[in-house]
Amino acid sequence: MPKKPLILVSNDDGITSKGINHLVEIMKQIGEVVVVAPNSPQSGMGHAITIHDPLKLYKSEIFDSVVAYECSGTPADCVKLAKHHILKGRKIDLVVSGINHGSNVSVSVLYSGTMSAAVESAIESVPSIGFSLCDYDHDAEFSHTSSFILDITKQALKNGIPKGIALNVNIPKKSKEDIKGVKICRQAKAKWQEIFDERTDPYGRKYLWLAGDFVNYDKGEDTDVWAIENNYISIVPVDYDMTGHYAISTLNDEWEI
Amino acid sequence: MPKKPLILVSNDDGITSKGINHLVEIMKQIGEVVVVAPNSPQSGMGHAITIHDPLKLYKSEIFDSVVAYECSGTPADCVKLAKHHILKGRKIDLVVSGINHGSNVSVSVLYSGTMSAAVESAIESVPSIGFSLCDYDHDAEFSHTSSFILDITKQALKNGIPKGIALNVNIPKKSKEDIKGVKICRQAKAKWQEIFDERTDPYGRKYLWLAGDFVNYDKGEDTDVWAIENNYISIVPVDYDMTGHYAISTLNDEWEI
Repeated sequence: MPKKPLILVSNDDGITSKGINHLVEIMKQIGEVVVVAPNSPQSGMGHAITIHDPLKLYKSEIFDSVVAYECSGTPADCVKLAKHHILKGRKIDLVVSGINHGSNVSVSVLYSGTMSAAVESAIESVPSIGFSLCDYDHDAEFSHTSSFILDITKQALKNGIPKGIALNVNIPKKSKEDIKGVKICRQAKAKWQEIFDERTDPYGRKYLWLAGDFVNYDKGEDTDVWAIENNYISIVPVDYDMTGHYAISTLNDEWEI
Repeated sequence: MPKKPLILVSNDDGITSKGINHLVEIMKQIGEVVVVAPNSPQSGMGHAITIHDPLKLYKSEIFDSVVAYECSGTPADCVKLAKHHILKGRKIDLVVSGINHGSNVSVSVLYSGTMSAAVESAIESVPSIGFSLCDYDHDAEFSHTSSFILDITKQALKNGIPKGIALNVNIPKKSKEDIKGVKICRQAKAKWQEIFDERTDPYGRKYLWLAGDFVNYDKGEDTDVWAIENNYISIVPVDYDMTGHYAISTLNDEWEI
């Protein structure tokens, strides 16, 4: 029997969330699973790392017959800890992150802790996938995602992921029958249009809640937003090289350097 | 007399840091300055935003004759608050972030709160620059950076920054005379090689410090790391579209979608 692949599972909603539990159950069908996940919700943490405080790391018995650790840090910290401390010396075959409770399409990739775990893995040259379900509910229904996630994960292990790329997979909040298929997409040009909700606490002090609406400016039919709106699963290959290469010549031409 | 440009200043080292004070003094020579900066150090916060807690925002008198606010949130929060709350309805001509106490070359752009303020501005279609001095000292000497920062900022206002791009400017820790000039660069392929320093607290509990060394794998002479090592100021145009466009066709060819 060939050796089972070593799969690291992390997320940003925290180790007790329903989404990571569902992902662990899927991955147990494919490989040897190790979980390193935050001990508290880390949504919106982007690619934050913990450098001003020490990290706490404890073994967890939360998953049935799976080695798991909960960590006081961010999703990116969890991947660093797994790679350079917990699994030091072992080859991790794949990192999967999620399943996120909520969409991570378009610019949300920048704010997403789920995707930062995947991007951190890409930096470490470990193939990685972030999975998100476009349903923000704490008690979201994940059962219809299993076969799609299983298929995408098997393809990643069999056919590989281009070097330096993390896959950003978003799954529509639809029944299995209503999902039309999978599209490889680009990140849509869209943004969050913020509104700050100002309130007063019981002591008379003002505070603000960050809120807002997602606004898509992109009419393309090759984007992740289009795919989700049209009942497809979107896969965006995310590159951690953020250089705007086309802008190098523009700046060299237009600026007096 | 033409109207002065409206310049928003933020950072990640916090509103009391030496770097932001230096940047404010430079920007006062060019425009109307408004500061919105974190009330505590936010290094390594990446593109984190605050969604689980409300934000606190207070006026600050820390800068001489400059309107300033300190915020309980992250650098990205500060830009959102400035654009959609404090300066709502006004056109911000430029966002500058920094001066960071320490390098933000290569992949550090992903972990950098300084750069997340600049990238958030680019998402909002506001031209932006993050400035970093390659000196981590809390009491770093910034005086030699003034003329370079003044020149780069004036060029950004005069010649513009390509749409959707934030500039990542790193300045070597050298005397003014030793700095050879400015190079437009790409992000070097490099990473942090982590080491976890495990210790025991006075109560017998283990904790870990994230530490490590920066390792450059990139031999190119067009990178930000090369520029800094060769006494040039590096400017990387940073694109918030993280799609690895070249990988779309690879995945379509090699995967069974």
